[in-house]
Amino acid sequence: MDISHRQFNKRIQFKDRDGSALANKQIHIKQNDHSFLFGCGAFDFMPYVMNGDEEHKRLAESWLDIFNYGTLPFYWGNYEKEEGRTEKDLLMKTANYLKEHNVKVKGHPLCWHTVCADWLLKYDNETILKKQLQRIEREVTGFAGVIDMWDVINEVVIMPIFDKYDNAITRICKEKGRVGLIKEVFAKAHECNPSATLLLNDFNTSINYEILIDGCLNAGVPISAIGIQSHQHQGYWGKEKLEEVLERFETFALPIHFTENTLISGDLMPSHIVDLNDWQVDEWPTTPEGEERQAKEVEEMYRILFSHPLVEAITTWDFRDGAWLGAPSGFVRKDGSQKPSYKMLRNLVRDEWWTDTNVITDENGFATVSGFKGSYALSADGHSAKESLTDDTELVITLS
Amino acid sequence: MDISHRQFNKRIQFKDRDGSALANKQIHIKQNDHSFLFGCGAFDFMPYVMNGDEEHKRLAESWLDIFNYGTLPFYWGNYEKEEGRTEKDLLMKTANYLKEHNVKVKGHPLCWHTVCADWLLKYDNETILKKQLQRIEREVTGFAGVIDMWDVINEVVIMPIFDKYDNAITRICKEKGRVGLIKEVFAKAHECNPSATLLLNDFNTSINYEILIDGCLNAGVPISAIGIQSHQHQGYWGKEKLEEVLERFETFALPIHFTENTLISGDLMPSHIVDLNDWQVDEWPTTPEGEERQAKEVEEMYRILFSHPLVEAITTWDFRDGAWLGAPSGFVRKDGSQKPSYKMLRNLVRDEWWTDTNVITDENGFATVSGFKGSYALSADGHSAKESLTDDTELVITLS
Repeated sequence: MDISHRQFNKRIQFKDRDGSALANKQIHIKQNDHSFLFGCGAFDFMPYVMNGDEEHKRLAESWLDIFNYGTLPFYWGNYEKEEGRTEKDLLMKTANYLKEHNVKVKGHPLCWHTVCADWLLKYDNETILKKQLQRIEREVTGFAGVIDMWDVINEVVIMPIFDKYDNAITRICKEKGRVGLIKEVFAKAHECNPSATLLLNDFNTSINYEILIDGCLNAGVPISAIGIQSHQHQGYWGKEKLEEVLERFETFALPIHFTENTLISGDLMPSHIVDLNDWQVDEWPTTPEGEERQAKEVEEMYRILFSHPLVEAITTWDFRDGAWLGAPSGFVRKDGSQKPSYKMLRNLVRDEWWTDTNVITDENGFATVSGFKGSYALSADGHSAKESLTDDTELVITLS
Repeated sequence: MDISHRQFNKRIQFKDRDGSALANKQIHIKQNDHSFLFGCGAFDFMPYVMNGDEEHKRLAESWLDIFNYGTLPFYWGNYEKEEGRTEKDLLMKTANYLKEHNVKVKGHPLCWHTVCADWLLKYDNETILKKQLQRIEREVTGFAGVIDMWDVINEVVIMPIFDKYDNAITRICKEKGRVGLIKEVFAKAHECNPSATLLLNDFNTSINYEILIDGCLNAGVPISAIGIQSHQHQGYWGKEKLEEVLERFETFALPIHFTENTLISGDLMPSHIVDLNDWQVDEWPTTPEGEERQAKEVEEMYRILFSHPLVEAITTWDFRDGAWLGAPSGFVRKDGSQKPSYKMLRNLVRDEWWTDTNVITDENGFATVSGFKGSYALSADGHSAKESLTDDTELVITLS
């Protein structure tokens, strides 16, 4: 698989503080981070940041040893259980902690019919929409600079026909239509943070979602990236489906984010379950065979996605087993121990797709440097520079 | 079923040429036509208009005894078999004949991937699109005043994924996307005839079509009416599905046209056939039991559609058995004899839903008149007037 689009290859001239070329020198080229977003649900950072217990500390450390990108929960029904009393403090502290550890944070989601605030139900549709837009303004403006990436609206394909229970968002989506509501919430998010990355996110990867995106783009909705969920509790999609999905969604020429990936290491959920939330089990253990399978599937899937030029992010949903649905869906077991999938992914992210090398400059201080796109420390003889290396343009770097 | 929205009920003052009220007079209120569009495929008028043979003359007469609305074929591959040589003469003569017989005409379709012109295949996509838009300009401008209603684009849901054979329109739809192509062809049609009724038409009545329409409307596409095909060779949808479809598509608050209705009077096509065109049979006879069933289904379906306020048109696709797919899909048999469905529909259109009555004016010439919306002849003592009666506003009519 061709992954040359993930790499740079450029001539760099190295100079010292005085502007003299560093001729015939060995330079250490050390990658600090990926341009690609290797993400994971970062919900577990919240108790850690607030309480700092040992269990969550170990989790946080192993999380940070792979990932540079985390999703934090902004489900309205949890974020603002009572109208006007939000969890801003908790989320801001956690987001800042992640930011300090060079982790890019995405807020998820600003508008969704599930885990919606029940207190909205007492209002009429006009008021619900007003409060939805105010909510977007409050979060997008309030977190700007700390969180500049948002799943603006989630699962719109089923939003107006979702009928498991009454909720405020289905009500307004029924009234305004899918694209009508998407337009409103994206316009507000974009207005509040024009440089933010704004995602439309769905688990429905059928033609429905294609047509929805097509309509939105023609209606001028400022979608920065297409979000695709890939919860595979019922079994790995496989190469063929994965490539087929990529082929259909690449036609929009927008960045693609795999926003919610799940591959489990235990028994598969039966295929007749339509809404994954309907699968309630007392125990869902991880198994040795399941763990081997999961690692293989993680490897194949991440390789395929990393090789696709439009894919900019892959987020695995659960870091630890036993989170959503109690599934063995993590990279680590319930006790925090690392599964084969953890080791597999760490190897890809921090070894196979990672650059740590030396080059020797010529008599004019030039060297050709290639590596995986990302941020770097470049050093020689105790002098160093930090630089983002993401393209093939020639560059002059001063080590000071 | 409530059909009061199909009726007017108004006070009318009748006067004579001198402006005197026609007091205590009996006035004959005679409906000449329906506001509702009772339509049928009018393809058979083409050989009749060109050749005037007896067989087609009888067909034309029984057609005109029910319908006020006809669809004429503008399939690009037939209309312009060789680039630059069109069937304009044939179509114009036929459309004019229908117009002279008070039949509103719709052209079908301006853009479609099926029956497409093969000679387009030699051009690149940019040229194909240019020729498609020129084609729209030529037909919409050229027929304006005779044909002011168009199925602008047909079956877009499957258009970019249609893979039975290569064709020029699938190529450009793949490139521009569904909504992108719809925007272009509607913009051109609207520009060429701003008062024309422009339809989007599809056999796909799923959520796909809903989302497509939603996107188009939010993208500003000037859709005048939603076209829904209902070819039921595999069996009558039934009341439940029909009402469910209406319920979903009424949310756009646009007029709904049932554009291509088929109910057959013979054996049903097996349900495993996906593309109806794949069903090839040597003989597909009409049967007495089938004819009784067809008449019942026609009655139920037309009653349901007539009772829905947004439905403005129902077009049955084949007038005579043995047309598309050789199916027993007509109101008349192959020999032109009338089936029970013909009699059923004629009874609805020209009797049950038809007004032919008398009223007596009061001492000031006033009478309250009610009837089915449409055009009328009003007369007394050899004096008469023609009037369109479509609402409940009070009116003065002079019989001269």
